[in-house]
Amino acid sequence: METAASSAAELRTPKAEVLAIGSELTSGQCLDTNSPWLSRKLAEIGISVRWHTTVGDDLNDNLQAFRIASERADLVVSTGGLGPTLDDLTRDVLAKVANVPLELHEPSLSAIERMFAQRGRVMPEANRVQAYCPRGGIMLPNEHGTAPGIWLETPKTVFVALPGPPREMQPMWEHEVVPRLRQRFGPTGVTIHRRINTFGWGESQVEEKVRDLTRRGHVPEVGITAHEAVVSLRITARGSNTEEAWKQIEPIEKVIRERLGTIVFGVDEEDLHDVVARMLHDRRMTIATAESLTGGLVAQMLSRVPGVSDNLRGGVVAYTNEVKRDWLGVPQELLDRYGAVSSQVAEAMAVGCRTRFGTDLAVSTTGLAGPGGGTPEKPVGLVYAAVAWEGGVRSSSFLWGTERTQIQGRAARMALNLARLYLASQLP
Amino acid sequence: METAASSAAELRTPKAEVLAIGSELTSGQCLDTNSPWLSRKLAEIGISVRWHTTVGDDLNDNLQAFRIASERADLVVSTGGLGPTLDDLTRDVLAKVANVPLELHEPSLSAIERMFAQRGRVMPEANRVQAYCPRGGIMLPNEHGTAPGIWLETPKTVFVALPGPPREMQPMWEHEVVPRLRQRFGPTGVTIHRRINTFGWGESQVEEKVRDLTRRGHVPEVGITAHEAVVSLRITARGSNTEEAWKQIEPIEKVIRERLGTIVFGVDEEDLHDVVARMLHDRRMTIATAESLTGGLVAQMLSRVPGVSDNLRGGVVAYTNEVKRDWLGVPQELLDRYGAVSSQVAEAMAVGCRTRFGTDLAVSTTGLAGPGGGTPEKPVGLVYAAVAWEGGVRSSSFLWGTERTQIQGRAARMALNLARLYLASQLP
Repeated sequence: METAASSAAELRTPKAEVLAIGSELTSGQCLDTNSPWLSRKLAEIGISVRWHTTVGDDLNDNLQAFRIASERADLVVSTGGLGPTLDDLTRDVLAKVANVPLELHEPSLSAIERMFAQRGRVMPEANRVQAYCPRGGIMLPNEHGTAPGIWLETPKTVFVALPGPPREMQPMWEHEVVPRLRQRFGPTGVTIHRRINTFGWGESQVEEKVRDLTRRGHVPEVGITAHEAVVSLRITARGSNTEEAWKQIEPIEKVIRERLGTIVFGVDEEDLHDVVARMLHDRRMTIATAESLTGGLVAQMLSRVPGVSDNLRGGVVAYTNEVKRDWLGVPQELLDRYGAVSSQVAEAMAVGCRTRFGTDLAVSTTGLAGPGGGTPEKPVGLVYAAVAWEGGVRSSSFLWGTERTQIQGRAARMALNLARLYLASQLP
Repeated sequence: METAASSAAELRTPKAEVLAIGSELTSGQCLDTNSPWLSRKLAEIGISVRWHTTVGDDLNDNLQAFRIASERADLVVSTGGLGPTLDDLTRDVLAKVANVPLELHEPSLSAIERMFAQRGRVMPEANRVQAYCPRGGIMLPNEHGTAPGIWLETPKTVFVALPGPPREMQPMWEHEVVPRLRQRFGPTGVTIHRRINTFGWGESQVEEKVRDLTRRGHVPEVGITAHEAVVSLRITARGSNTEEAWKQIEPIEKVIRERLGTIVFGVDEEDLHDVVARMLHDRRMTIATAESLTGGLVAQMLSRVPGVSDNLRGGVVAYTNEVKRDWLGVPQELLDRYGAVSSQVAEAMAVGCRTRFGTDLAVSTTGLAGPGGGTPEKPVGLVYAAVAWEGGVRSSSFLWGTERTQIQGRAARMALNLARLYLASQLP
């Protein structure tokens, strides 16, 4: 372990700067999430980012920013400024900084024309500029948009210009940039992050169980974060290669899992809907949803998962008592006696939903998302969720949060977590 | 108007740079929300931010960043680096850049000792460094933490160093910094942003209609951005006061609305679901949803709006043909003849949904979100949406995108947009 850490420190690490371009960023109208994403991705391949710079859509500011970056960094990665409009300056700026002309790149022009043709449209003349490349540069194909990226090397610096929209930038990074960086900078060591995701406890409750691991100076480093009611532990390990870094992570992950037990539901980017969809798939089981306060969020989260149509049959958004009664078969008597926000109604919704859709499982939510409608007995933030299966039903509740979408998000995850706990006991 | 514009242009507008300090930012482990917040706050008092720079906890990187900023900006606002640990360098860096010594500021030391005493603790020796101020600087009291801020002027530049935690930084900004900035830079006017949001056309198609307004140097400035299939025009106006800035915005907004017609659906932060929920509320009308590929997203977007429970009765997520038939009354014959992804089925879903929920309106979606399931006739990205009302139904389609959640998001907005177009013709 100690050996891995010290040999990692001796590795040659190129210095990198990330540039974000756009007046919507310098004015504070949009949040720059690309730069932190790129920092994390660069760290994974052993390249450490020392500077982030953001400039607006101004030619001189761009020229200056690229020049400063190229003087201090070995690698400059920019996002934005590659669109078809007059605001988009990155192509021009790269050519000026490298002191080369822009040239039309025919294959890129064809690719852009093809992309429009596939949508049954003719390419607007404005998009032609997106096919221009600084001489000596390499155009990086864009799978999800019209703006190609640009790889350009000068004697001192490697420039990588990427489009701003994350759904275009991120695949381009993985497919076009990472292989070229590995080749260009050689083995630089690796940093691996492993996230262990939990649901059910608060952040400080989780932290109490792992305080010895999160202290400063612990190798590997363990951090704790909370997002959308999911509390995650992040293990960060550096090594000269992947295997060496993993050897640091495995024993710590094992300790964390032992201490936290069933609240651990997944790793890395996995959210609860990913895990539930995978478990349904593996067990060839079907699910339906009955949602009141979450308004379709549980079904919508599941439907983000490719291939889930084999397992998710459908769902009902039951905002009113009439819909709960007529569409889900919740007895009027339960609604009258306990109110719509009750464990009894949550359970009846799940049971009725399962019967009517003919699925193996059904989950339900009911509660008060606010801001109006709370009472001293049933305040805003009170939520019930349930899961029903053949011959059984189980519900759970919480009272937490003040903000509408935050309460909805936590309620949806509570329903999914009930499904997960049920499925975990039904091993295939 | 020209008077307003030219008098605005004559205002002396200081150039500002925002520096964020911390290795947790350059490594991408934390998102910097301070810099966009400060940009918006500075714009409110007429100071425009041209640069954001982020550096880690490294002395030379900090010295260089502060020097570059002080050369190009009149005002440099930094966050972070004021804590009690060895990592915290901002005090030293400011003193070095201004070429003055650090001096102990007794009132700050007393304040820090008092803050610990209030928590029943003795001040650790490490916190003593937080009471040091570069000679000639002003210590800015911190109501919510131990780190005072620092105001320091050199002949060329005003430096404002603030603590990193937003709950400490933001009150210090409002109470200590804004009054001093107003005094130092005099009346600097105000900057107002107005966003006009459209749905239905691509970014370049919109730009072709307003190219004369988006050209560089146009007053007020008009920019164009696209996010989640919503294309927005952002008008930025400066004036000596709010009224003067609005006088620039109004005629341009009018021109934009005239040229773009019904694709304009809202302003500023409004998304389509906000607009549809408001229109339903104003007209006291009800809606239900029938969703295939969007999996509940339309209902879920509407359910984010507080108070929508008066208008959204419920919905069905109809992932399978059986659910479309049994729950929404789509004739089996239509499913057999045209397939689930067709305008006929989209319309039948909306009509059936409206009848069964007994609402004024219903919207539906059906399509292929992928990644699997596409054919040459019906490729991934092909989507139909419909809106049904008493005595009528209308559908619309698109073929766009490759990424699952992107296709789902655009499909949901297409359904909401159909509802909006119908409601717009039903003036109360």
